[in-house]
Amino acid sequence: MRNAVPQEIEITKINESKISQVDFENLAFGKVFTDHMFICDYVNGEWQTPKIVPYGPLTLDPSARVFHYGQAVFEGMKAYKDDQGDTFLFRPDENFKRINKSAERLAMPEFPEEYFFDGLNTLLKLDDQWIKSGFGNSLYIRPFVIATQPSVSASEADEYRFMIICSPAQSYYSGDVSVLVAEKFSRSASGGFGYAKAAGNYAGQFYPTKLAKEQGYQQIIWTDSNTHEYVEEAGTMNVFFRINDTLLTAPVSDRILDGITRKSLIALAEKQGYNVEVRPIKVSEVVDAFNNGSLKEIFGAGTAAVVSPVKAFGYKGEHYELEKQENSYASYFKKSLMDIQYNKAEDSFGWRTKV
Amino acid sequence: MRNAVPQEIEITKINESKISQVDFENLAFGKVFTDHMFICDYVNGEWQTPKIVPYGPLTLDPSARVFHYGQAVFEGMKAYKDDQGDTFLFRPDENFKRINKSAERLAMPEFPEEYFFDGLNTLLKLDDQWIKSGFGNSLYIRPFVIATQPSVSASEADEYRFMIICSPAQSYYSGDVSVLVAEKFSRSASGGFGYAKAAGNYAGQFYPTKLAKEQGYQQIIWTDSNTHEYVEEAGTMNVFFRINDTLLTAPVSDRILDGITRKSLIALAEKQGYNVEVRPIKVSEVVDAFNNGSLKEIFGAGTAAVVSPVKAFGYKGEHYELEKQENSYASYFKKSLMDIQYNKAEDSFGWRTKV
Ligand SMILES: Cc1ncc(COP(=O)(O)O)c(C=O)c1O
Ligand SMILES: Cc1ncc(COP(=O)(O)O)c(C=O)c1O
Repeated sequence: MRNAVPQEIEITKINESKISQVDFENLAFGKVFTDHMFICDYVNGEWQTPKIVPYGPLTLDPSARVFHYGQAVFEGMKAYKDDQGDTFLFRPDENFKRINKSAERLAMPEFPEEYFFDGLNTLLKLDDQWIKSGFGNSLYIRPFVIATQPSVSASEADEYRFMIICSPAQSYYSGDVSVLVAEKFSRSASGGFGYAKAAGNYAGQFYPTKLAKEQGYQQIIWTDSNTHEYVEEAGTMNVFFRINDTLLTAPVSDRILDGITRKSLIALAEKQGYNVEVRPIKVSEVVDAFNNGSLKEIFGAGTAAVVSPVKAFGYKGEHYELEKQENSYASYFKKSLMDIQYNKAEDSFGWRTKV
Repeated sequence: MRNAVPQEIEITKINESKISQVDFENLAFGKVFTDHMFICDYVNGEWQTPKIVPYGPLTLDPSARVFHYGQAVFEGMKAYKDDQGDTFLFRPDENFKRINKSAERLAMPEFPEEYFFDGLNTLLKLDDQWIKSGFGNSLYIRPFVIATQPSVSASEADEYRFMIICSPAQSYYSGDVSVLVAEKFSRSASGGFGYAKAAGNYAGQFYPTKLAKEQGYQQIIWTDSNTHEYVEEAGTMNVFFRINDTLLTAPVSDRILDGITRKSLIALAEKQGYNVEVRPIKVSEVVDAFNNGSLKEIFGAGTAAVVSPVKAFGYKGEHYELEKQENSYASYFKKSLMDIQYNKAEDSFGWRTKV
């Protein structure tokens, strides 16, 4: 296989870390970046020598395809530090596989596995002091690939840049969210690329979400674009419903991102002996369950917020407020998952990888 | 209205034009750019002083939102020069309105009309020698807006850059195209943003188009994502069918770009007394018309290729070759439109604007 032999990473270190200027008690999500970044360019049909360099601006031609045709994919993962100072990743092989699945759908070249993991591990070791221990603190990791080729012609590029940038993230509680169920707008089409973590899947959500915010909702739960009768997922989270003691979530499809948190929760639930149903879920079924008192919980699941309880939802002009649950599934899942991520619990699934 | 007062454009001219290095007889589309570009930044809720500067690279933070969430819109228009050396634009008000319609759907700020036209006219005057006369030669103009704000948070940005770059385009005949009718993949969803000229609508087409190319087709005709029974549009063109002497095209919707060439052809056809039907068109109807001999022509319509005749189409494993028509509608439309664009014919619609 071409590119299978890992190359030495060329490393240029910063002269002086900027870490002392960072207030780790007041971190806005995704705004502050660590001292270094990983870069690998694809030119002439090959990934070139990977580099780690000081975090800093990119220089691109205004005609670079990413600006015009959205040829860009990304991943979102986290590094967690335990009280002994060891750092862990959670199922990073899943992120690696997914970025290449996304890349394939966008006609972008596959990134070699060795480069991905060598780059990631080397970068995390170099910027180790940016990963703070403490339950809930983490380093958010953003691998991404952009089409850099200069020329405004609407076809796939011949030149790309793969990068990894990292941003320290704080443990925070943003409060339970209110969500609006989509009735008119859609996130993705059957036969489209909604299952890819592609740039083009996000910008289209901002305007409908802005309108939802004007109605007092923080997020949208997307429904299928054909009928708007079935729930799909939220902006950056898959969605779970608890009806009585059964946990429900929609099956993934070519419209829905196959979330790593989602599949981990399903595994945890099954291990715990919860009844889990992965099947199409009608909005009307959720409303009926609310009305007859069997709808106990709704929550989102994703790397950034882990598990995010929903306190209310809006649909067809009605507003539904959920009752707070004792011993909620959401809090059980959040704690179980974080215990594994922070090396506080046994990892019977083999999800944890030490850096 | 905020920003309504046009500001002086700050102009920095190049020292020496690079035009002498350009081979105008061998131009690949969208690869060579003129000496200058127009830039206007949106910061603190306001469009700042517009600038014209030498064409050159952009410097952006790796966390700029355009790289991650595809918040980017664009336009495609052309400047045409007649034999007297006068330069014309074709319905530029439509491009201006459309870029703001696209921007609204992507939760991006509106760009002021005065800035758009002052910027465009000033830039075209400065780079006038790049616009070559000769029927078919033109200057392709690419206005675009990208989200520049650094921070990987999945919401609309607070900072943007509006730019105009220009690329000389040659008269060329690429041959009639073969197209594949989409059966599985889709371009856009109902309730989505297919009607916007947004970056995210393009990258998703490259992979299906690559597969189509492997089957010997150059482009895809997209169908509706729900049933794949109705034809919609091509990658960068709207599509017309001529059945006997009736001209058919699909109505625009939230999935289809409202093409300026498309609406101009409809107006020309009506003026010419052709029977025009704008209505949903089933693929099966096109196949039936082929089989009974009434399908005379298929062609695409868009700014880049003007009118692009289709010589064959593929659908459900069958290949359909169209017969060449004498006095084709496609060639009539192409000539009529170009005669207006190049100031060779009377402009009864008032479409031409002198720069
Ligand atoms: C659209 C979408 N759905 C779901 C998720 C959750 O996926 P994961 O659990 O892998 O973070 C994400 C990303 O975080 C996403 O962008
Ligand atoms: C998706 C799509 N459809 C149709 C068109 C044709 O539009 P216009 O005639 O305004 O160039 C374009 C752009 O050129 C396009 O990108």
